[in-house]
Amino acid sequence: MGPRTLTLGLHMQQVAIGIDLGGTQVRAALVDEQGRILARLAEPTDALAGPDRVLAQICGLTDRLLAASNPASVVGVGVSAPGPLDTVAGIATDIPTLSGFVDFPLKAELQKRFPFSVDLENDAIAAAIGEWQFGIGKGLDNLVYVTVSTGIGGGVISDGRVVRGRKGMAAHVGHMSVVPNGEPCPCGNRGCFEAYGSGPAFARRAQMRAMESRETTLGGAIDSRSVFAAARNGDRLANQLIDEEAEILGRGFTSLIHIFSPDIIVMGGGLSHEFDRLQPGIQAYISQWAMPAFKDVKVMLAALDQNSGLIGAAALAFLAEDVARP
Amino acid sequence: MGPRTLTLGLHMQQVAIGIDLGGTQVRAALVDEQGRILARLAEPTDALAGPDRVLAQICGLTDRLLAASNPASVVGVGVSAPGPLDTVAGIATDIPTLSGFVDFPLKAELQKRFPFSVDLENDAIAAAIGEWQFGIGKGLDNLVYVTVSTGIGGGVISDGRVVRGRKGMAAHVGHMSVVPNGEPCPCGNRGCFEAYGSGPAFARRAQMRAMESRETTLGGAIDSRSVFAAARNGDRLANQLIDEEAEILGRGFTSLIHIFSPDIIVMGGGLSHEFDRLQPGIQAYISQWAMPAFKDVKVMLAALDQNSGLIGAAALAFLAEDVARP
Repeated sequence: MGPRTLTLGLHMQQVAIGIDLGGTQVRAALVDEQGRILARLAEPTDALAGPDRVLAQICGLTDRLLAASNPASVVGVGVSAPGPLDTVAGIATDIPTLSGFVDFPLKAELQKRFPFSVDLENDAIAAAIGEWQFGIGKGLDNLVYVTVSTGIGGGVISDGRVVRGRKGMAAHVGHMSVVPNGEPCPCGNRGCFEAYGSGPAFARRAQMRAMESRETTLGGAIDSRSVFAAARNGDRLANQLIDEEAEILGRGFTSLIHIFSPDIIVMGGGLSHEFDRLQPGIQAYISQWAMPAFKDVKVMLAALDQNSGLIGAAALAFLAEDVARP
Repeated sequence: MGPRTLTLGLHMQQVAIGIDLGGTQVRAALVDEQGRILARLAEPTDALAGPDRVLAQICGLTDRLLAASNPASVVGVGVSAPGPLDTVAGIATDIPTLSGFVDFPLKAELQKRFPFSVDLENDAIAAAIGEWQFGIGKGLDNLVYVTVSTGIGGGVISDGRVVRGRKGMAAHVGHMSVVPNGEPCPCGNRGCFEAYGSGPAFARRAQMRAMESRETTLGGAIDSRSVFAAARNGDRLANQLIDEEAEILGRGFTSLIHIFSPDIIVMGGGLSHEFDRLQPGIQAYISQWAMPAFKDVKVMLAALDQNSGLIGAAALAFLAEDVARP
């Protein structure tokens, strides 16, 4: 290839548009083939206004991004949204945090509004794709991404492919049962991993135990952050609560290691901001209790932080492009 | 194509050799492209004699099969063996039921002995492949096969592909934790699905509860079979124990439904011989407690019974053939 081809290649840099539709924020980004965010915009989701308004928000953000950066070539738009999404049919079955998204043909409605091809993905799967293509899992063929936040969600890459399953709804790992008839879970069942390992579950345990204890500095409105802060100041109960949380996560991750045999577990979500404090306990559980062939599997921190899903959504467009042009 | 080609096609019927290497029996079969067993032989595994002797058994059975039926074209040999097998490297890491199979290069040693290409698969994954290609899961893209027997094992097909994971060791579904620090499991951990749902776990519960009860006909050496027999004769405790077993399986299967989003769950193994009695309780759990989008997933009985793994092993050879000749 001569210099002319090379120059043309640079001009024709391909970008994808990633959209992360959440209950709180709509975020849009232009992402290049190396997973770098070239430009990003966000605004509060008008969550009660219904699909028309939310779709207008998505289009508005995208138009502003494109107007500002004027990319040479857009390969497509990838949209990440809270599940359960039937990504095979392109239907939002029910998005609890967004009014009116019940059996809503999200993909078709998006496609109507964009001149680019549209891909749709469940948010935690999109985040897994982001970490796999451009984050801590780059180059690996097998990973389980777990977001530990308000809930627990997941996405799985196995044998170099995204595990999607029927309706594209695989990897609802927060809803594996860990305690028969245990704590109530927002899903309606009891005893789910989410009901024990999520941020709110951790904070609830801290509130209960702080009330029973006389020797803790924990008190008032306790959330995850305050427990970690107290632990750093030497509070014994806070440290104990964190060790228990690490054990709960370690046990759940060990189940997932046996179930998927990943190269690594990637932890994202709000609680992963305290990864350094949680990691030794999680890893100790895996090393002690996983079956011999799985003891060396490492838990690692998501590298793209709150952008895993946004970058993963854009990566969808690049992946679809690869498949379309073999 | 003229009649001559057609005749030639019939003469050239392709068969695969399936081997099911178990701790009790070595079984070998010639299987055609429709998954039909054309000929089958078995003998007790010389489990304490070491790999050389066991490999000689496999070759002996295969030679006798081929001599008796003289097939026109053998596409390959598929071997199913108890895990954990590193099927990527072709290594038997440790087969507890067979002496000497520790870090043993099983695939290479088999390949030395056969003029056909050899494929190796973990036994429950082989069974899943059998049910997917030729059994109850034929034509489906997503299924989770669970064998409930002396232990609990699994194999998963997702998006029309076998889920293998790192070292090919995915789907050890019997070792997801269902009760924190619960009953001891043969794997060394506590509280695994296998420690609650397997045949021996069920029988142990029956023994304990029969001792505490004055109103049961259960007594003496209780095994799974005697509990089902007593239940059929109207024994109340026996029926209660079976309902509890169905709930344990239903809860575990619901976790797997959330984790993999399969079209169906396929149940095999010893306890599946009582599928008709267990199915309503399992299905009721799924319908009640799975998240809305998953409530309609059905649990179905394996169609190939004890031959799932044998036929699945043979299917490996056909699948490998498909990949080799696109």
